[in-house]
Amino acid sequence: MAPPLYQVVIDTIVERIASGVLQSGALLPSETQLGAELGVSQGTARKALMELESRGLVQRAQGRGTFVTVRTPETSLFNFFRLRAADGTLHTPKLEHETARRRAATEAERAALWGRPDEVIEIERVRSLAGRAMTYEVSVISAALFPGLADRVPLPNTLYVFYQQAYSIIIVRADEQVKAVPAPARCARLLGLKVGAPVLAVQRQAVDVLDRVVELRLSQNVTDDHAYFISLS
Amino acid sequence: MAPPLYQVVIDTIVERIASGVLQSGALLPSETQLGAELGVSQGTARKALMELESRGLVQRAQGRGTFVTVRTPETSLFNFFRLRAADGTLHTPKLEHETARRRAATEAERAALWGRPDEVIEIERVRSLAGRAMTYEVSVISAALFPGLADRVPLPNTLYVFYQQAYSIIIVRADEQVKAVPAPARCARLLGLKVGAPVLAVQRQAVDVLDRVVELRLSQNVTDDHAYFISLS
Repeated sequence: MAPPLYQVVIDTIVERIASGVLQSGALLPSETQLGAELGVSQGTARKALMELESRGLVQRAQGRGTFVTVRTPETSLFNFFRLRAADGTLHTPKLEHETARRRAATEAERAALWGRPDEVIEIERVRSLAGRAMTYEVSVISAALFPGLADRVPLPNTLYVFYQQAYSIIIVRADEQVKAVPAPARCARLLGLKVGAPVLAVQRQAVDVLDRVVELRLSQNVTDDHAYFISLS
Repeated sequence: MAPPLYQVVIDTIVERIASGVLQSGALLPSETQLGAELGVSQGTARKALMELESRGLVQRAQGRGTFVTVRTPETSLFNFFRLRAADGTLHTPKLEHETARRRAATEAERAALWGRPDEVIEIERVRSLAGRAMTYEVSVISAALFPGLADRVPLPNTLYVFYQQAYSIIIVRADEQVKAVPAPARCARLLGLKVGAPVLAVQRQAVDVLDRVVELRLSQNVTDDHAYFISLS
């Protein structure tokens, strides 16, 4: 069965954003132009744009047209970095330590990551907040999808903005599982904790605009003075 | 400055839902009827209904009209109970232990709860999943807002459905702060843990349809076999 016409329009625009043809902040064609170009009605083009807007990929500005959503380091941090001080303020974490190395993928990583990569890049980072080591974070990405990344250390503080700018990979969702666990040895050493002290472990799968799992990330956090903030509705 | 007209329509409908005049699942007046009744245009009535829909308070059914959103025990649990097994499945937790008692409010409780109550009701619960004690939960609510609740033990499993049915208090949002902490003595005893074992502490403020903080809840969870699931975008 052929997909509905508006889905074809959606896929076309997502493809252009993902490939970098339409860059962050770019103006999209009007509904009329899109319709003419892709051979669909203006109503179909409008339906596609509304769906893209509801996914957060584009933004409509009254009277000015539709633009590719701009993701700045600030909005990216705000969306995906949930640790806050007790009063809810967000302090930008400072990068204290970083390594990136290429290695063979584990079976679990192959199964979870898009493209079933044989090799991955593992990025290890320690972040501090208010002068105190607070987050130990290990990110795992496909070596084939991020060529040369391991040689580009030091990486920018905000990996997702870097993924987009350097690799046209746009993270739009993060599925997280949060647990309280005893700090393992390496984590405890890097964060200055006793082995077994409680840390907040956040296991993330980051999904890009093409609905591919492109990053696995485990962060372990000290939550004495901070907490993971979330609003449910 | 007078509020915009559509805001007046929104407030009127929220008031009717909160007071129970419009019950869960009830059909709302049409845009034309609402406009005539409240002296606003059909467009203004439509704008108000769209806003109420985006807040999740009403649902529009194509060709059938607009209805007050039905919150069943299942949807309520699904929204506000984020603990899942590793594969993402939700097991309904079993209530193992429950007490409710009236007591004086602490200064912090008075400051946080709507209405600055002098007296509160504290509900203590232990829940189990798959036969294992897993959550120790203390909920604190205003005694004035929930008259007689302490005498109604055993309470239904899903407190938010009970709040709505018995007190017309409709929880629509929960703001949570999640931490990893060492289990305090009472929590450890009730959950069968060693004192100091890591537990996932979730501090919640539950907000009702009138934007009032009506419940404070601290739940402490064992996350060996389960995790707090969340999707960020």
